[in-house]
Amino acid sequence: MQWSAREICDLVDGKVIGDTEVKVSKPSRIEEGQPGTLSFLANMKYEEHIYSTKSSIVLVSNTFEPKTEINATLIKVTDVYLALSILMDKFEGQNKLQAEGFSSLAFVRDAAQIHDTVSIGAFTHIGESQIGEGTIIMSHVSISDRCQIGKNVRIYPGVKIYHDTIIGDNVIIHSNAVIGSDGFGFATNEDGTYKKMKQLGNVIIEDDVEIGANTTVDRASMGSTILRKGVKLDNLIQIGHNVEVGENTAMAAQAGIAGSTKLGKNCRVGGQTGFVGHLKIADGMQCQAQSGIGSNIKKENSILFGTPAIEYGNFVKSSVVFKHLPEMAKKLRELEKEVALLKKQNLTEQ
Amino acid sequence: MQWSAREICDLVDGKVIGDTEVKVSKPSRIEEGQPGTLSFLANMKYEEHIYSTKSSIVLVSNTFEPKTEINATLIKVTDVYLALSILMDKFEGQNKLQAEGFSSLAFVRDAAQIHDTVSIGAFTHIGESQIGEGTIIMSHVSISDRCQIGKNVRIYPGVKIYHDTIIGDNVIIHSNAVIGSDGFGFATNEDGTYKKMKQLGNVIIEDDVEIGANTTVDRASMGSTILRKGVKLDNLIQIGHNVEVGENTAMAAQAGIAGSTKLGKNCRVGGQTGFVGHLKIADGMQCQAQSGIGSNIKKENSILFGTPAIEYGNFVKSSVVFKHLPEMAKKLRELEKEVALLKKQNLTEQ
Amino acid sequence: MQWSAREICDLVDGKVIGDTEVKVSKPSRIEEGQPGTLSFLANMKYEEHIYSTKSSIVLVSNTFEPKTEINATLIKVTDVYLALSILMDKFEGQNKLQAEGFSSLAFVRDAAQIHDTVSIGAFTHIGESQIGEGTIIMSHVSISDRCQIGKNVRIYPGVKIYHDTIIGDNVIIHSNAVIGSDGFGFATNEDGTYKKMKQLGNVIIEDDVEIGANTTVDRASMGSTILRKGVKLDNLIQIGHNVEVGENTAMAAQAGIAGSTKLGKNCRVGGQTGFVGHLKIADGMQCQAQSGIGSNIKKENSILFGTPAIEYGNFVKSSVVFKHLPEMAKKLRELEKEVALLKKQNLTEQ
Repeated sequence: MQWSAREICDLVDGKVIGDTEVKVSKPSRIEEGQPGTLSFLANMKYEEHIYSTKSSIVLVSNTFEPKTEINATLIKVTDVYLALSILMDKFEGQNKLQAEGFSSLAFVRDAAQIHDTVSIGAFTHIGESQIGEGTIIMSHVSISDRCQIGKNVRIYPGVKIYHDTIIGDNVIIHSNAVIGSDGFGFATNEDGTYKKMKQLGNVIIEDDVEIGANTTVDRASMGSTILRKGVKLDNLIQIGHNVEVGENTAMAAQAGIAGSTKLGKNCRVGGQTGFVGHLKIADGMQCQAQSGIGSNIKKENSILFGTPAIEYGNFVKSSVVFKHLPEMAKKLRELEKEVALLKKQNLTEQ
Repeated sequence: MQWSAREICDLVDGKVIGDTEVKVSKPSRIEEGQPGTLSFLANMKYEEHIYSTKSSIVLVSNTFEPKTEINATLIKVTDVYLALSILMDKFEGQNKLQAEGFSSLAFVRDAAQIHDTVSIGAFTHIGESQIGEGTIIMSHVSISDRCQIGKNVRIYPGVKIYHDTIIGDNVIIHSNAVIGSDGFGFATNEDGTYKKMKQLGNVIIEDDVEIGANTTVDRASMGSTILRKGVKLDNLIQIGHNVEVGENTAMAAQAGIAGSTKLGKNCRVGGQTGFVGHLKIADGMQCQAQSGIGSNIKKENSILFGTPAIEYGNFVKSSVVFKHLPEMAKKLRELEKEVALLKKQNLTEQ
Repeated sequence: MQWSAREICDLVDGKVIGDTEVKVSKPSRIEEGQPGTLSFLANMKYEEHIYSTKSSIVLVSNTFEPKTEINATLIKVTDVYLALSILMDKFEGQNKLQAEGFSSLAFVRDAAQIHDTVSIGAFTHIGESQIGEGTIIMSHVSISDRCQIGKNVRIYPGVKIYHDTIIGDNVIIHSNAVIGSDGFGFATNEDGTYKKMKQLGNVIIEDDVEIGANTTVDRASMGSTILRKGVKLDNLIQIGHNVEVGENTAMAAQAGIAGSTKLGKNCRVGGQTGFVGHLKIADGMQCQAQSGIGSNIKKENSILFGTPAIEYGNFVKSSVVFKHLPEMAKKLRELEKEVALLKKQNLTEQ
C-alpha cells in the first residue's frame, strides 16, 4: 500500500513543503533512504543526511530550517517522534504476523478460563488461570496456576510466568522473560549455610506495561512486586522482590533494582544502572547509564550519574578533574616542597 | 489453616508479649499488615510501622524495646529471619503447586534412567541422562545426554541443560537459566578471524545450590566449572568457563565471573559486580554492588568496593572527596599562584 | 582413541622434546593433569604447574625455556592457542552429540522451505521460513515467519527468533538467546504516557557469528541491526536496535550497546561494558571490563577504561591517585593554612 505526502499530512496534522503527490510505502533511515520511502530527522546529529537522502519524504520539526536545497518533500510537524509512531502503525498494517488461533499443540488445563478470542501458540502450557479477550499467547509459553491475564495482551515465545501473577490489559512481554521467579531471600544459619526464605507473594503488572526479552521480575516474599501502569522495561533487566516501579517509568537494558526499593513515577533509568535495596526514589528521577544509586532520592526530577550516584553536572565536572589526578598529585607534592622551602627561608630571615 | 501466637511460639522457640490466643493464617509486610496476618520487624528502618500496623502478630528480635504502645501481639526470637523462614514453610503448605506427575506430552529418550517418583512437565525433553528420586522437572525443560541429576531437585520451566552436566541433591534452578553452554574461547588467526576453541569440559553443581532465572553457567573448556555445596546465585548472573564458586558463597543479580577465576567459601558478591579471569579470591570476601575485581584477593574476609575495587571504607572516603574534585583543582591552582608570588617576594627581598 | 606425541606434532606442526611415542586420549588442565592426557601452558601465571603436572604431554610456546626438569613430553609450537584449538577438534570427535534428525514432535509450517539435511529437535516451531543445508535446530526453538537461515548453522535449545531475521552460514546461537525482539522505542505523550514506536526493521547476522546464552539482539526500528562476519558475542549481552557490530569484533559477557551505535572491526569489548546510543567506534578499539563509552572514538586501536571511559593507562594512573584522595585533600588544606601564614608573615615583614 502507498500513501501520498498529502495523505500523510492529514494523518499527522503536518504541513507539506514540496510535492504533495509523491508516494511512499515504507519507512527508511535517512542515511539509507530510497525513493518510495519516508524518513525522519529528529536528532540534529543526522542533519547532514537530509541534504543528500534519496527518500521521497522526510518528517521534520516545525522549527527545522534547511541550510540549503533538499530534494525530498518535507512534512513539518510539532513532534517528529509522535508523528512517526502514528505512521509506523500504518506501515506495520501491511506486514502483520498472523495470529495462530488456538494451536492443537498447546496444552491448556481444563479448569483454565480462556476467552474465545484468545490465540495460543504451539507447545504452550497454561495452568488453572484466566486469560482475557483478544490476548495472544505465542509458542513455548508457560503460564502456571492462579494467574490472571487481561485483554489484548501479547506474550512472545518462551515467556515463563509463575503462579499467582496478575497482568493487566495491553501488556507486551518479550521472549524468554521470566515473571514471578523466587526473590533472593535466605536466612543464614550459624554454620554459614543458608535456609531458604519461601517467597509467598506474587507479581502484579498493571495496564500498558512492556517488558523486554530475557528480563526477570521476581515475586514478592509476601505482598506483591508491582509494575505500575505504563512502565516500560528494556531487555535483561532485574526487578527484585517487593520492588515497586511507578507509573510511566522507563528503564533501559541491563538495569537492576534490588529488593523492596520503590521507584516513583516518570523516572528514566539509564542502562546497566543499579539500585540497592530498601530505597525510595522520588518521581521524575533520571540517571545516566551505569549509575549506582545507594541512597534515597527525595528531590523530584533529580538528574544523577556515577557510583555512588551524585548530581549529574557535578559527576561530569569531577570526572574531568579525575583524568588529571596524576598531574594534580604531582603539583601538590611540588607545592609542598616549595612551601617547606619558603617556610625555611622565612625562618632564616627572621 | 490458622495458627495461634502460642503455637507459633512453640514453632520458633520465642516468647509472646500480648494475646497468646490471637490467630493468623498468612504473612504480610508490616506496612501493609491486616488482622489475621503475621508480620516481622528485622530492619529497624521500618520500625515506625510497628506502632501502626494492623497485623495480629509481629515477629521481633529479643533485643527490641518498643518506644510506645503496640497493638499487635509480639513474638520475640533470637534471629528474626530464621524464625520467619520456619513460618514461611508452614504458610506455604496450604498453597503448594501440584506436581504434574509424568506428563504424556514430555519426550524422554528410552535410554534415560528416571526414578519412578520423578515428575516431568509438558513439552520437556530428556536425553540419555539419569534423574534421581523425588526430583521435579517442570515444562519446556531440555536436558541433553549424559547428565546426572540428583534427588529432590526442582527445575523450573524453560531451563536448558547441556550434555555432561552433573547436578547434586536439593538443587533449585529457576526458569530459563542455561547450564553448560560453551565457554567463550577462541584462538586468533593471523588475519584477525577466530578459530573456535572446542569446550570439552562440563559443569558440576553440588548439593543445595540455587540458581536464579536467566542465569548462565558455562561448561569448562576442559575439566569442570564448579558451583560448590550451598552456593546461591540470583538472576541474570554469568559464570564463565572453568570458574569455581566456593561453598555457601552468595551472588546478587547481574554479577559476572570471567573464566578460570576461583571464589572462596562464604563470599557475598553485590549485584552487577564483575570479576576478571584467572583470579583467586579468599574466603569470606564481601563486595558492594557494581564492584570490579581485577586482582587476586589474598586476605580473608576482605570488604571491597569500586572499580578497580579497593577496601570498602577507603572507597567511600575517596568517593566523598571525588565530589569536591573541581573545588580542589581550583584551590590547587590558586595555591600555585600564591606560592609563585611568595617565591617572587622572597627573591625580591633578598 | 589415542594419539602419540609424534602424531600430535604432525597435526600442529610442532617439535617434540621428550618421548615421541607417549600417547594421550583427552585434554586436561595443567594443574589437574593425569597420565594419558594432554595439557598446555600459554599463560605464564601457570608456569609452576608444568614442573609437577602428571600430564603426559604439554603444549608450550617455541619461546618457552624450562627452569628445571619436566617429566612431561613437551611439544613446542608457534601459537599455543591455535595448536590447542586444532587438537580440541580431534578430541571432540569421540564425544559428539548425536544429531536428532527431524523430530516428529516438531511443528513446521507447510510453507517452510527446509533442506533435506536439516535436523530439527522436539517441540521446535518453525514458521514460513527457509533453512539451509546441514543446519541443526535443537529442541524448544521458535523461528517465526519470513526468516532465512543459512548452511551449517547450529541453534541450541530454547532460542527464539522473531520474524524477518536473516542468518548466514556457520552461525552458532546458544540456548535461550533472543534474536529480533522489539527495539526500545517510544514517543512521549504530553501527559507523560508513552506511544510505542513500531519496530519494523529486522536483524541480519552474517557468516561465522557466535552468540552466547541468553543474549538479546533487538530488531531495527527501520532498516537492520547487523552483526558482521565473524562477530563473537558472549552470554547475557544486549544489542540495541539499529546497532552494527563490525567484522571479527568480540564482546565479553553482560556488555551492552544502546541503539544506533556502530562498532568497527576487530574491537574487543570487556565484560559489563556499556555503549550509549548513536556513537561511532573506530576499528580495533579495546576496552576493559565495566567501561562506559559515552562519546565517539575516532582513533583506531584505542585502548580504554573507566566510566566515562578514557585512555587505559591514564585511567589506571588516576585510579591509583583516587585511593589517596582523602590524604590529598588533607594535605591541600594544610598547605592552604601554611601559605596563608606565609603571606601574613611576608606582609608583617614588609
